[in-house]
Amino acid sequence: MSFIMDCLSVNEKGNLSMGGCDVKEVAETYGTPVYMMDEDDIRKNCRIYANAMKKYYGDRGLVLYASKAFSCKYIYKVAMEEGLGVDTVSGGEIYTALKAGFPAEKIYFHGNNKTEDEIELAIKNDIGCIVVDNCDEVDRIEEIAGRYGKTVKAMFRVSPGVDAHTHDFIKTGQIDSKFGEAIETGDAIKLIKYASIKKNINIAGLHCHIGSQIFELDPFCETAEIMIDFIDEIRKETGIVISELNLGGGFGIKYTEEDDPVDFDKFIEAVSKTVKAKTKEKGLPCPFILMEPGRSLVAPSGITVYKVGTVKRIKDIRNYVCVDGGMGDNPRFIMYGARHGALLVENPLGEKEETVTIAGKCCESGDVLVENIELPKAKKGDYLAVLTTGAYNYSMASNYNRIPRPPVVMLKNGKATVVVKRESYEDIIKNDLI
Amino acid sequence: MSFIMDCLSVNEKGNLSMGGCDVKEVAETYGTPVYMMDEDDIRKNCRIYANAMKKYYGDRGLVLYASKAFSCKYIYKVAMEEGLGVDTVSGGEIYTALKAGFPAEKIYFHGNNKTEDEIELAIKNDIGCIVVDNCDEVDRIEEIAGRYGKTVKAMFRVSPGVDAHTHDFIKTGQIDSKFGEAIETGDAIKLIKYASIKKNINIAGLHCHIGSQIFELDPFCETAEIMIDFIDEIRKETGIVISELNLGGGFGIKYTEEDDPVDFDKFIEAVSKTVKAKTKEKGLPCPFILMEPGRSLVAPSGITVYKVGTVKRIKDIRNYVCVDGGMGDNPRFIMYGARHGALLVENPLGEKEETVTIAGKCCESGDVLVENIELPKAKKGDYLAVLTTGAYNYSMASNYNRIPRPPVVMLKNGKATVVVKRESYEDIIKNDLI
Repeated sequence: MSFIMDCLSVNEKGNLSMGGCDVKEVAETYGTPVYMMDEDDIRKNCRIYANAMKKYYGDRGLVLYASKAFSCKYIYKVAMEEGLGVDTVSGGEIYTALKAGFPAEKIYFHGNNKTEDEIELAIKNDIGCIVVDNCDEVDRIEEIAGRYGKTVKAMFRVSPGVDAHTHDFIKTGQIDSKFGEAIETGDAIKLIKYASIKKNINIAGLHCHIGSQIFELDPFCETAEIMIDFIDEIRKETGIVISELNLGGGFGIKYTEEDDPVDFDKFIEAVSKTVKAKTKEKGLPCPFILMEPGRSLVAPSGITVYKVGTVKRIKDIRNYVCVDGGMGDNPRFIMYGARHGALLVENPLGEKEETVTIAGKCCESGDVLVENIELPKAKKGDYLAVLTTGAYNYSMASNYNRIPRPPVVMLKNGKATVVVKRESYEDIIKNDLI
Repeated sequence: MSFIMDCLSVNEKGNLSMGGCDVKEVAETYGTPVYMMDEDDIRKNCRIYANAMKKYYGDRGLVLYASKAFSCKYIYKVAMEEGLGVDTVSGGEIYTALKAGFPAEKIYFHGNNKTEDEIELAIKNDIGCIVVDNCDEVDRIEEIAGRYGKTVKAMFRVSPGVDAHTHDFIKTGQIDSKFGEAIETGDAIKLIKYASIKKNINIAGLHCHIGSQIFELDPFCETAEIMIDFIDEIRKETGIVISELNLGGGFGIKYTEEDDPVDFDKFIEAVSKTVKAKTKEKGLPCPFILMEPGRSLVAPSGITVYKVGTVKRIKDIRNYVCVDGGMGDNPRFIMYGARHGALLVENPLGEKEETVTIAGKCCESGDVLVENIELPKAKKGDYLAVLTTGAYNYSMASNYNRIPRPPVVMLKNGKATVVVKRESYEDIIKNDLI
């Protein structure tokens, strides 16, 4: 028996099981569509990163959960309990983390175009670090920090120019990027110099991010080397010693059998070795390092369970299995052509009998969840699980077609807990003033 | 002076003007990002269709607003006042229309996979017509209608097999479709026969939809002929006389200068002529006809106004103008590679000085609103309008990155009215239970 997701198994009833819960029972209790997440599996992944950081780099590192992958109050509590910091990218994420009781000093705030309101929210609440994108932002931070009489700890987003092999849309290490300033063009050093004369900004570190769903160690090592070369350049040109290095995330995960991800701890191991060796070579102190897994911490621990409605077998053309959700709760196929696995909840190991396309209920032909997947014959009323949906599903969900967003149910030790409630029709019209 | 959108002009201050309002002033008052819509322009478009229907087809037709394009309580009120019916695709849209006071008998309910709850909502509220997709759904409707002691007026979704030249994702007339049953395969006539023996279902008509953003009349005329041939086949095979024919929507609009749309009334004219000629030829009574414009009724009347933040000019590579919204409020670029026009609100007619990419503030490289557009030099603090965003923007908006969704402000006779309020951070976490 092998599933793409480690946290899935089959119980004595022959049903899919997750977090000790019968997935069918949870679906019956909370209705469909429903996002389910295995809390212990998320925690296990948190620990793989945190332990690797300790093992390979001592106490000189911190793992930040990149919360854009999946943000709600509860996930910040999990990250907090696991001793992680968090990476936030908006006022909304900062607000959510703070409401969850997340310690402000372990919140990092990213973004290519932070608004003044967001910067003020961060400074007012003593957010641990702002990852500064550009000179304009330096000015904004300097002004707002001055107004509050505070000094802001800052990292600076730079492009190392590494081209990680991944989907065009999510490639961010290259020079053609809205994020940060490129080392290669000289803009990055200009940014550091520009910030160095500001009195309310404390230059603590550098940040970079080279892409998403990366299945190789080399791009990360190469990036670490480039970044340390740049730290050396900064020291030589300005005398400033950069003490923190944030190497971002983008660690690939297994969506389908064809994906061959590296064990998560290997990323930390490889990067740690590179940083130690390279700083030694350059005669630099070892920086505090940060890494930012997002998708890899939550995607492999989540499924979305739907109920099958219409099944349409169009002879010699295609078999459509239509479910009661779609691009509203999972826009990854229509946005990226992303591929997910799928299983029938009551027959997860059944013989594959036909190739089907799992479509949603939205009024749009592109509303597909999984194209051309082999499944046992599905029929109306079956529960169907789309796999590996813990990241970029709930966080990207819309109310397209005015369909309420599904709840998020956390499964742990045989107990199901609703951490995000299902939207109601009343929720959907609540802001319709007239 | 020429804008892509008819409803835009320049006022005495040199600012962009819409619905008699200074767009800059509205943006200052309500903040950015903000969706603005010209109410009279929407009404003008409603009347073009409604008048054309009257002129070319007498009182034997009805225009339905396909509300998935933009759904909120207020737009149903506008449609109602203009005498239109509405096309809804979910319980959420039906709920919103009813809450707006829209007459139930003029609501049509579509969808490839309506849930039982949705069908019950429709039947309980005496929704005018259910557009039935398949035999399974016939059973569900028969059962629920029986339970309520009601007879449901039904149309049947069929695929005429017309391949309209448009984006793959939104092509729906072909046989490989999750929608309805194909005439060509014989599945459509089976569906009609299957429904004909149900006692709670009144077979009133047929429905088809051949795609979106179609710039030609021919596919619609061809479709009308195929549908009337099918009506003839139904009469011959079953004796049933189909009295209503719904030819769907998909009328192309002008997003960029390269788009060359047909005047909306021409669609009605062409279809009316075809239907009259073809039914005469077949010796059939002229059916009541319905057409379903969605995008064309609202897209050309809407803009989204942002504030420019970061402007990043990467020498010899690209100029990024970053605004305070993005793929959360307009996912059309990342989903479809869609193209929109854009203007600087305070300098709409200014000389074009550089080619820029308008990017959002989301933490994602694909977060682009407009790629490679010529604009006067934009700077931080400028207001920037992305054009023709009245459809599939608000309706598809997400809280990705936990960014609150913008408000919708209706402009009319120099007066701005908020019809959908901006979301707050509190709104975003309201369903986070723990």
